[in-house]
Amino acid sequence: MAQQLTAQRVTLISLGVEDLERSGAFYEALGWQAAEKLPEVRFYRLNGLMLGLIGIDALATDQGRPGARLGTGAMTLAQNYRSPGEVDTAFAAAVAAGATVLKRPEQVHWGGYSGYFADPDGHVWEIAHNPFWPMDADGYLAGEHG
Amino acid sequence: MAQQLTAQRVTLISLGVEDLERSGAFYEALGWQAAEKLPEVRFYRLNGLMLGLIGIDALATDQGRPGARLGTGAMTLAQNYRSPGEVDTAFAAAVAAGATVLKRPEQVHWGGYSGYFADPDGHVWEIAHNPFWPMDADGYLAGEHG
Repeated sequence: MAQQLTAQRVTLISLGVEDLERSGAFYEALGWQAAEKLPEVRFYRLNGLMLGLIGIDALATDQGRPGARLGTGAMTLAQNYRSPGEVDTAFAAAVAAGATVLKRPEQVHWGGYSGYFADPDGHVWEIAHNPFWPMDADGYLAGEHG
Repeated sequence: MAQQLTAQRVTLISLGVEDLERSGAFYEALGWQAAEKLPEVRFYRLNGLMLGLIGIDALATDQGRPGARLGTGAMTLAQNYRSPGEVDTAFAAAVAAGATVLKRPEQVHWGGYSGYFADPDGHVWEIAHNPFWPMDADGYLAGEHG
């Protein structure tokens, strides 16, 4: 068996954004509450991890490649809900907040119900119901992690 | 106060990959254990959420835009550790597994210690110690979420 050399864990998801005010307004229009607002970053507390909005140029610099043109779409975030009806409600709220619809929620081949939208910077969210992945009352996926 | 219209939650992080075997081998060289391996996707259980590897073309199709060229770098994942020494160990393990170094771990302006690498598909990970964000024994960030 391989030794676990890196933790099977994510502590922070950072989204590089063009305009922190615009992006913050989008997520706050979804009803999100910021845990911390600084001039150059905003943090939102999720289920045991944080999501941060940070200027995309600052993110490239922080990555050690100032001036790099960073891309979106190949890493997506799914937010699961307890029913297709909850998915529809959340998806409609995102559209009302200005999200770009990529795919409206529909029954999908793996047995769930899911749609996709992009935020103002092109970051992709999936809004899904997955009957095979139960969540606890606090929105954490049940089961032990590695 | 805004009503919370969408949950402040991430259930699944999906990484679009060119070669599922190659990417699976990379994460497993870090010592990760798959929770589920299917022909078209692999899932790894994290701290209350899942990380999935999925073919990048399948991901574009799933997003409702088959053939789209999806980009990386603007959304990053940070894996926090309890000390700078743990960061160094994890970072070295990733490099040994074939990660591309973007920035070796160093003391950073916000008071932590952090480095960045890219996985075989260009997905960016930050390996960090943040003394201001305590984790519990299971690797969850402490504190209530919204």
